[in-house]
Amino acid sequence: MTSYSPRLNRLIEALRRLPGVGPKSAQRMAFHLLERDPQGAEFLRAALVDAAGIQRCPSCRMFCEDGKCPYCSGGRAATGQVCVVEGPADLVAIESSTPYRGRYFVLMGRLSPIDGIGPAELGLDALGAMLKGGAVRELIIATNPTVEGEATAYYLAEMARGAGVRVTRIAHGVPMGGELEYVDGGTLSHAFAGRTPA
Amino acid sequence: MTSYSPRLNRLIEALRRLPGVGPKSAQRMAFHLLERDPQGAEFLRAALVDAAGIQRCPSCRMFCEDGKCPYCSGGRAATGQVCVVEGPADLVAIESSTPYRGRYFVLMGRLSPIDGIGPAELGLDALGAMLKGGAVRELIIATNPTVEGEATAYYLAEMARGAGVRVTRIAHGVPMGGELEYVDGGTLSHAFAGRTPA
Repeated sequence: MTSYSPRLNRLIEALRRLPGVGPKSAQRMAFHLLERDPQGAEFLRAALVDAAGIQRCPSCRMFCEDGKCPYCSGGRAATGQVCVVEGPADLVAIESSTPYRGRYFVLMGRLSPIDGIGPAELGLDALGAMLKGGAVRELIIATNPTVEGEATAYYLAEMARGAGVRVTRIAHGVPMGGELEYVDGGTLSHAFAGRTPA
Repeated sequence: MTSYSPRLNRLIEALRRLPGVGPKSAQRMAFHLLERDPQGAEFLRAALVDAAGIQRCPSCRMFCEDGKCPYCSGGRAATGQVCVVEGPADLVAIESSTPYRGRYFVLMGRLSPIDGIGPAELGLDALGAMLKGGAVRELIIATNPTVEGEATAYYLAEMARGAGVRVTRIAHGVPMGGELEYVDGGTLSHAFAGRTPA
């Protein structure tokens, strides 16, 4: 295929590396930035430079900056609760929709031996030390209800039990507003088996 | 909604300005760059810096760099043909699928009075001067077959006729490999009206 000038090609190639962006979208994005939104290009460039200053919190593994993690304050630690999630987006989802204000532990993945992701890659040694430290009274598992998320949840539950910490799991069942008729079979059978006293 | 740290928010906001990117995709892209592809972030940053050096060719309005436009060489000018397209992607599509190797004129848009885009915004004064210069023997109109593209084509044809230059239009009809049964009515009636001797 005939190509663009070298710099334009490089810009298209760089945009293609973003997840979910194919050659046509990358081209459209590049033209948009060049033709219609040069300030947007400058804004993105500056944001990428700044992003180099984003670190991981050493205790909860969430993104943070300037060495201060808003999710690891003393007030949160005092609750004695730690919620384990797979990724940063899960943390933000819980924080924005629930009244939970305890601490978090962000795995940044899930156990997946086939991809070489074991307990060490998820920082579970640090979590283990935290559980044994005695300050944690409840470990809340909020991994995704996928095969790998379930395996991770099982592993985490065993860890917590080994350390003598109470462990809970967020409820899985029919989503609010969902209609039984249209809910998938796996969810429905899970909801049925997990029925609670009304 | 609970938000991320300021730098991460800024990165997500910058990515959201790209066309076709909503809040969830922007978040996914930001996490991808931070967690999995920091080299990609650096590559994109460098590409954006370089992109500041991309200019417009003063004669054909295509993107070019270092003052050299590959589509305005002497050999191309010697053909006496100029093909008018709406955008850079159209030029590249024609260049890669057809044997045409004449010059181009990239409108970077289409006539659209409602959006304040008139002949001046599309650089039609420069095209008019080129047509009157005497070196152009054929103006090939390859605007899109949309309402605005058709209006633009009509305007361009009038300009060319006024300058005494032969004007042609790329054919519109049933696409190759298409089945009559599934072709839309507008295309089919256009194809029928524009039938050529077999």
